[in-house]
Amino acid sequence: MPGLQQGRLALATTRGRWYNRRGGKMLHKRVIRSLHRIVGRRNVLTTPADLLLYSYDSSTERGQPEAVVLPSSTEEVAGVVQVCGKHRVPFIPRGAGTNLSGGSVALHGGVVVHLSRMNEVLEIDLPNQRAVVQAGVVNLDLQNILARHGFQYCPDPASQKVSTIGGNVAENSGGPHCLKYGVTTNHVLALTVVLPSGEIRRFGSSVVGQPGYDLVGLFTGSEGTFGIATEMTLRIVPLPEGTQTVLAIFDELDAAGQAVSRIIAAGMLPAALEIMDRATIEAVEASFPTGLPTDVEALLLVEVDGLREGLDRQAQECAEICRGVNARQVEIGRTQEERDRLWHARRSALGAAARLNPGMLVNDATVPRTRIPEVLRRMREIERKHDIRIAKVYHAGDGNLHSNILFDPTSPGERERAESATADIFRLAAEVGGTITGEHGVGTEKIKYMSLIYSQADIEAQRALQRVFDPEGLANPGKVLPAAEATR
Amino acid sequence: MPGLQQGRLALATTRGRWYNRRGGKMLHKRVIRSLHRIVGRRNVLTTPADLLLYSYDSSTERGQPEAVVLPSSTEEVAGVVQVCGKHRVPFIPRGAGTNLSGGSVALHGGVVVHLSRMNEVLEIDLPNQRAVVQAGVVNLDLQNILARHGFQYCPDPASQKVSTIGGNVAENSGGPHCLKYGVTTNHVLALTVVLPSGEIRRFGSSVVGQPGYDLVGLFTGSEGTFGIATEMTLRIVPLPEGTQTVLAIFDELDAAGQAVSRIIAAGMLPAALEIMDRATIEAVEASFPTGLPTDVEALLLVEVDGLREGLDRQAQECAEICRGVNARQVEIGRTQEERDRLWHARRSALGAAARLNPGMLVNDATVPRTRIPEVLRRMREIERKHDIRIAKVYHAGDGNLHSNILFDPTSPGERERAESATADIFRLAAEVGGTITGEHGVGTEKIKYMSLIYSQADIEAQRALQRVFDPEGLANPGKVLPAAEATR
Repeated sequence: MPGLQQGRLALATTRGRWYNRRGGKMLHKRVIRSLHRIVGRRNVLTTPADLLLYSYDSSTERGQPEAVVLPSSTEEVAGVVQVCGKHRVPFIPRGAGTNLSGGSVALHGGVVVHLSRMNEVLEIDLPNQRAVVQAGVVNLDLQNILARHGFQYCPDPASQKVSTIGGNVAENSGGPHCLKYGVTTNHVLALTVVLPSGEIRRFGSSVVGQPGYDLVGLFTGSEGTFGIATEMTLRIVPLPEGTQTVLAIFDELDAAGQAVSRIIAAGMLPAALEIMDRATIEAVEASFPTGLPTDVEALLLVEVDGLREGLDRQAQECAEICRGVNARQVEIGRTQEERDRLWHARRSALGAAARLNPGMLVNDATVPRTRIPEVLRRMREIERKHDIRIAKVYHAGDGNLHSNILFDPTSPGERERAESATADIFRLAAEVGGTITGEHGVGTEKIKYMSLIYSQADIEAQRALQRVFDPEGLANPGKVLPAAEATR
Repeated sequence: MPGLQQGRLALATTRGRWYNRRGGKMLHKRVIRSLHRIVGRRNVLTTPADLLLYSYDSSTERGQPEAVVLPSSTEEVAGVVQVCGKHRVPFIPRGAGTNLSGGSVALHGGVVVHLSRMNEVLEIDLPNQRAVVQAGVVNLDLQNILARHGFQYCPDPASQKVSTIGGNVAENSGGPHCLKYGVTTNHVLALTVVLPSGEIRRFGSSVVGQPGYDLVGLFTGSEGTFGIATEMTLRIVPLPEGTQTVLAIFDELDAAGQAVSRIIAAGMLPAALEIMDRATIEAVEASFPTGLPTDVEALLLVEVDGLREGLDRQAQECAEICRGVNARQVEIGRTQEERDRLWHARRSALGAAARLNPGMLVNDATVPRTRIPEVLRRMREIERKHDIRIAKVYHAGDGNLHSNILFDPTSPGERERAESATADIFRLAAEVGGTITGEHGVGTEKIKYMSLIYSQADIEAQRALQRVFDPEGLANPGKVLPAAEATR
C-alpha cells in the first residue's frame, strides 16, 4: 500500500502536507523506476519484508517507508533526492538505525536513503590532523584505522560499534569521552551535503576559520531535516600517551554524585565520569556477569588521560575522593586489559537493560551538574508516583542523565505510566535549567516536549531556517520540530 | 548630513536598499527623539566630533553613523532596534572597535549601538563551569576575575586587553591559545539576543546538549548581521596547573615552519605555536626593544600547558626539535616573569608594525598546516611582484597567517599595490585549500574575496538564512555577504 504510512496515520494526516498531493500506485511505480535508473534495480528495496525491516530504529517509534535505496555515491544520493523532489516524496537518511529518538523512522512513508554502502574512509591526513570519510563509515571502524597511526576521532557514542559517522553528525552524538573532548559538532570541519533541491554543496573548510555563517554547525545535529550529508571532514588528534580508569562502588547513589562534584571542584577534567545505578548493575549482572556486587547503589567510572606523567597522581586523587565519600571499593585500571574489565559493565548497560525488559523508554535529559543530587532525589519520587522502575546511566560530568524507563508492554497501563514518567523527567530537567536531550536528538519522540524549552516564536524561527533549505518539507519530515499545523 | 554616508558612497548607492526609502532631516530628528526616550538624552551621541570618533574601527574601512547610542540593558537595546526598524535605519553593534575587517564600521550610516556600558559580569558559576557576562565586558577583565578563582575563559585574541566578549562572539575570535582550546564558538553555551525585529530571545542552553538547530553557533561569527547579542553564557575551565614557554630564533623562516611540523608530528598539542618574521622582529625592536637580534629571520614561540608533571619533558622536546632544525638560540621560560619576557615581542607585534608604518593592511588568510612552507615561499614572490613589505605573524599551529602589509598611503600607488598583494594572498590561500579568514571575520574588507571560497549559490543560501532574521536588511548591512544587488 504505497502512499500509506504504518503506525502513525493520525500524525500523517495532520502533518503530511505532501501526502494529499500525491497519487496512488501509478506514481509510486514511476518513482521506483526512476530510482532504479539512478542506483540500479538491486539497490532499491520494495518487498514488504524489506520495508518492515526498515520501519524502525532503536527507539520505540515505527513508520514504514515505501522504498529503501542504497546509493553508492554523493551523485546517486543527489539523483535520489531529485526524484523525491519531483514527485514530492519524503526522503529519510539512515545510517545504522541506532537512533534512540526516532530520527531515522519513515514517519510519513517515503524513501529511506540508506548510506551503508558509502562506507569508505577517503583520506587520512595526519600532518593536518583530519580525516575525510563517507557517511556510512562505522565510528569504531574509523577509530581502529586511526589507532594504527596513533590517532583518534574523539566522539565515542555508546553505539560506536555499529553507528555511522553520518548518523553521529546528524544527531550531534556525544559519548563518555565527550566531557573532556566535546561532542560531534566540535570535531566536524566540513561537510559535503545533498540539499533537498538535489544540489550538491560543500560547507565548511578543512582549515580553522571559515568566512560567513557556520553552516556546518547548523547541519550538524539537524537530523537530516536540512538534507543529507554524504561526506565529512573530521578533526582527528593524537591518542593520549596514557589512560587510567578508576572504578568505585557506593552504597548510596548520592555519594557517587558527590564524588563527581569533588573531582570537578578539584580542578580535574577527566576524559569520562560515568555513573550507573543499582537497577542497571543488576541488569548487567543478570545478563553479562562481571562479578560486581548487586547490593550496591552506584558505580562510578572515572577516566583520566594525557601525558604519561601525572596520570598516577590524578587517578590516585580521584580514588582518594571516592574513598572520602565512603566508596565501598575502589579499583584503578592501568593496563588496557584492566581498563576493559572496569568498562565492561558500563558498556553492557544499555544492552543488558534492554535484554531483561520487554519494554524500555530511553531518554537523555541533561541538567546542570550541581542540580544532579536534587534531580536524583526527585527522580525517585517520579518512580514511586508512576510505580515504574528507572535504570539510570549517567554521563555525570556533563549532567547528561540517561534514564532507561523499564516497562512491560503487555501489562495494561504500564506503557502509559512509562510515558508519563518520561514527561515528568523532561519537565523536571527543564525546571532546573536543563534540557530534553544531551546527545540523542529530538527525532519524533521528543517533539512534544520542545515546548518545555522553546517558545512558539523560537520554534517558528527554527522552522523558517529549515524551510530555507527544504521549502517543500520533504527532508525527513516530522522530525525535530512540531508540525507547522500543530503550532499555528 | 544625516542620511548620507561617508567614504563609501558608491557602495551605499548600489547596496543601500534602505537608503532610497528614507527621508531627510525631519525623519532623522524623530529617530533621535525616540532614541532619547529609550536610553536617555546623554546616551545618544550626535555631534560631528562624536560621529567622527565612531566612523572607524581598527581596519582601514570608514563610514560615519548618524547617531551613536549607549544602552545599559538588553531591553534598551531592544527598544533602539525597534526604533531603527520602524524608521528603516540600519543599526551597527559595536564593542571596543578593535575589529580588523570593518565589521563595526557604519558603512551605510545608521545607528551605532555601542555596548560599552553593558559591562557587567553577571554570574560566575564555578561548579557548573560557566560565566554569564554582558556583551561589553572586556575579555581580559573577565580573565582577571576568573584567574582569582583559578579559572579561565579560553579564547585570548591579541586584542584581549580592550576587545569585548560581545565583539569576540560576533567575530568568532581566535587567539594564540585557540590551537589547543578552540576558537570562541567552542566556548559559547547560550546567548541573549535582540533580533532585528526588536524581540529579545534566548538561544542555547547552559548545559551540554540543546534540542533543535544550533542557533548559538549560527549567531557566533555572524558579525551582527543576525541581531545584537547582549548576554553570553560562556564555558570556563580551570587554569592549567603549569605552563612553560619555549622561544627559538632562526636564520631561516622555513626552519621555524619545519619546527612547527615536527612538533605536531611528535604528537604534541601545544597551547600555542606562534611565528614572527624578520620584518616584525625589526618593527618590535625599533618600537619596544626586547633585546632580540634583528638579523634573524624568524622567532618561534611554543607554549605547553597542563599538569605539572610532563611539562619539563614537553618543553625540552620542543627545544630539541628547534635545535634539530638549526635554531640559533633556544630559551625556556618557566616562571610567569620569564614567560612574560618571551611573549613580550609577540604581544607587541601588531602595535609595533602599525606604529612604524603609516599604512598597514592586516589579513588572516588560513592555509593547511602542511602547505605553510610553500605558502611562505610564494608570499615572498608576492612581496617582490608588488614591491611591498609584509610583516608576518602566524598562529602557525592553525595555519593562520597574519600578513601585515606595510605601505605609505602618501606614496602614489602604494596603497593600490598593498591591496593587490592582499588579493594575491587570498587567492593563494584559496588555491592551496585554505580560506580568507581565520579569526578576523569578513566584515566589509573581505566581501570581495568571498567568491574565492563560495559559489553564487552558497552565498545566496547564506543570504536566505540571514534574511530569516533580518528581512529588512537593517542588521549591520554591507557586512559578511556581497550586496544582493551585486550578486544577482
